[in-house]
Amino acid sequence: MNAPVYLDNNATTRVDPAVLAEMLPFFTELFGNPSSMHHYAAGVAEAVQLARRQVQSLLGAKHDSEIIFTSCGTEANNTALYSALAANPGRREIITSVVEHPAILAVCEHLEKNEGVTVHRIPVDAKGRLEIGAYQAALSDKVAIVSFMSANNETGTLFPVEELAVMAKEVGALFHTDAVQAVGKLPMNLADSAIDMLSLSGHKLHAPKGVGALYLKRGTRFRPLLRGGHQERGRRAGTENVTGIVGLGKAAELAQAAMEHENTVVRTLRDRLQTGILQSISHCFVTGDIEHRLPNTVNIAFEYIEGEAILLLLSRAGIAASSGSACTSGSLEPSHVMRAMNIPYTAAHGSTRFSLSRDTTDADVDRVLAVMPEIIARLRQLSPYWGKDGPKATPDFAPAYA
Amino acid sequence: MNAPVYLDNNATTRVDPAVLAEMLPFFTELFGNPSSMHHYAAGVAEAVQLARRQVQSLLGAKHDSEIIFTSCGTEANNTALYSALAANPGRREIITSVVEHPAILAVCEHLEKNEGVTVHRIPVDAKGRLEIGAYQAALSDKVAIVSFMSANNETGTLFPVEELAVMAKEVGALFHTDAVQAVGKLPMNLADSAIDMLSLSGHKLHAPKGVGALYLKRGTRFRPLLRGGHQERGRRAGTENVTGIVGLGKAAELAQAAMEHENTVVRTLRDRLQTGILQSISHCFVTGDIEHRLPNTVNIAFEYIEGEAILLLLSRAGIAASSGSACTSGSLEPSHVMRAMNIPYTAAHGSTRFSLSRDTTDADVDRVLAVMPEIIARLRQLSPYWGKDGPKATPDFAPAYA
Repeated sequence: MNAPVYLDNNATTRVDPAVLAEMLPFFTELFGNPSSMHHYAAGVAEAVQLARRQVQSLLGAKHDSEIIFTSCGTEANNTALYSALAANPGRREIITSVVEHPAILAVCEHLEKNEGVTVHRIPVDAKGRLEIGAYQAALSDKVAIVSFMSANNETGTLFPVEELAVMAKEVGALFHTDAVQAVGKLPMNLADSAIDMLSLSGHKLHAPKGVGALYLKRGTRFRPLLRGGHQERGRRAGTENVTGIVGLGKAAELAQAAMEHENTVVRTLRDRLQTGILQSISHCFVTGDIEHRLPNTVNIAFEYIEGEAILLLLSRAGIAASSGSACTSGSLEPSHVMRAMNIPYTAAHGSTRFSLSRDTTDADVDRVLAVMPEIIARLRQLSPYWGKDGPKATPDFAPAYA
Repeated sequence: MNAPVYLDNNATTRVDPAVLAEMLPFFTELFGNPSSMHHYAAGVAEAVQLARRQVQSLLGAKHDSEIIFTSCGTEANNTALYSALAANPGRREIITSVVEHPAILAVCEHLEKNEGVTVHRIPVDAKGRLEIGAYQAALSDKVAIVSFMSANNETGTLFPVEELAVMAKEVGALFHTDAVQAVGKLPMNLADSAIDMLSLSGHKLHAPKGVGALYLKRGTRFRPLLRGGHQERGRRAGTENVTGIVGLGKAAELAQAAMEHENTVVRTLRDRLQTGILQSISHCFVTGDIEHRLPNTVNIAFEYIEGEAILLLLSRAGIAASSGSACTSGSLEPSHVMRAMNIPYTAAHGSTRFSLSRDTTDADVDRVLAVMPEIIARLRQLSPYWGKDGPKATPDFAPAYA
């Protein structure tokens, strides 16, 4: 059996062994509570501070105090929205997009239904690009916060968040970006941006699960979500997840060092995977904005078959990929991202995400290219929409992309 | 130099090496997202489920689905209070005690100031025992939730939460207990109790920091604090902290196995430490309810000196202890727990907590007993309240306990 191939790095990443090595002493040796007064605590508080500076550096933030450690990207996203509304009581509207992660959309729905908040959900076009005109029309001095993702988790499509943030500032609204998929893959320079808040998640960049961070630009009005102790300068109560924070710090350092590799070697591998699939398999197309996309992600819609079946056969071949987001898996509906782009039903159902990382090798790409044509051919033989020589006449399911 | 002595286990504990061993494969090998569909995920979801059953067993809960994993005890505490109010909109009062952890008190203060919630803070007597009459008087059908800690973090004093819960039920209020200090030290049987919700924290029982749990009795109305993905049956969104959860599960198993040791060997060590100090040092007394107390905790008020100075000299001698809670350290005020018990100012300032664990040895206790008289004598020589042969006449500072 061949070594397994892991191309589901947008769902979660392998903890880098160097990250784990950095964490290990803090479990059983340097285990003090960083808030304690004795010698068990001193080195621990310093390690947390080092991690804060490592994350600051990856984000290009001006001050290390702008980094608030959280338990995950979801907590950071939730905190950003709730805080913006609580800290700006005169503003009762939110602007976001239809393709955000559930950690944004579910909070918006809750606020809309239970708190009377007005939510503007800006649509995207067939390539997943934000409808800027609709965004501009929704902007007003009633808007507490604008929240747009930096990169879409399913397609890798990038939103121009720097410019979108400038537009939010013009009406005095806060600007937050869910950058869970972008941090570690794209260079950031928050010190020179209009972005007020940014969410990141450790386990998307080779740190462990259970740790994330919220960037909060100095001077931004803020209300904590978790209340209690004075940790994180009173902005996030709860004993610090020291090992997770130390791991996130080291992972940030490693991601910064690997940034060029990510945008050259990983991008080239991704492009070779994409080209190889498009050349060897008919009736499939790339979804999202091909020109403005994460370097590690390609999402391909295979028409007339089911994505879950593709994943099953890939998994049997030792290859891990994904259909849409892990956070919404188990649902029989096509993903909200595919629907938002108006991807035809039968193509959306067959959309498959391959997300690479710096661990991905040439051999991994070769393996996928070797098995993929046979998997697709086999599933199409079983498809009611597929005839002997190709798709049956089904005008309703004509792909949006030719 | 002697080996360091760690007697600050109520602040945080050393991760048990067996816990760490259980966690290790999930960082770099079994690193899949438990929500994913492929082979990387299957074993991970099972490991999370095993941990849930291990925690269920430690708590004596009826169903494993009653365990919701969180990022810490603070998150569990915050969630319990916010949920109770949101799920019972007709009830706008909370009952709690004056000696709760900040993770309860800060939320109550916030709800009182910003949401118009009425908070009844039940006082305690000089031994830290709850004023039951005041509790009964506050109970009514306006109360959404009663929240009393199982064991006080500073003194180890136990509240009779089983009976207090029964009283809450009589007016239809939810009952929550912050059991962060009690879980793993006292046997629990939640299946047969009237307790609706219970908070615990991994790092207080030899699991890592960054993981906790909220017990939620089946049928209890609930509103999540974190929204997004479907994790934890929709009750706590965010990718599961797999390594933390696996560690918490193993720690729960180990705590259950060590329960008798904790209540015999550890208790005996604690009693020997207490007796030794009281016998060798004048003008000091144990705070809290000596008869109803955690087996691992003793809090001693040394009169006429400063606790911070005691800790400093202990730390120089390689001994870690604490003055009050790590979550409120850095403050110059005596702790709210000492004030609530009406411990005189100069005694409260000198209160020192020794919290043992199953790692504590006879030699550890010997070391403290060997250095403590000299430390106290030295500091009293510097005290303005201390003369050549004992305390100066300072009637205002007469101890409550003789």
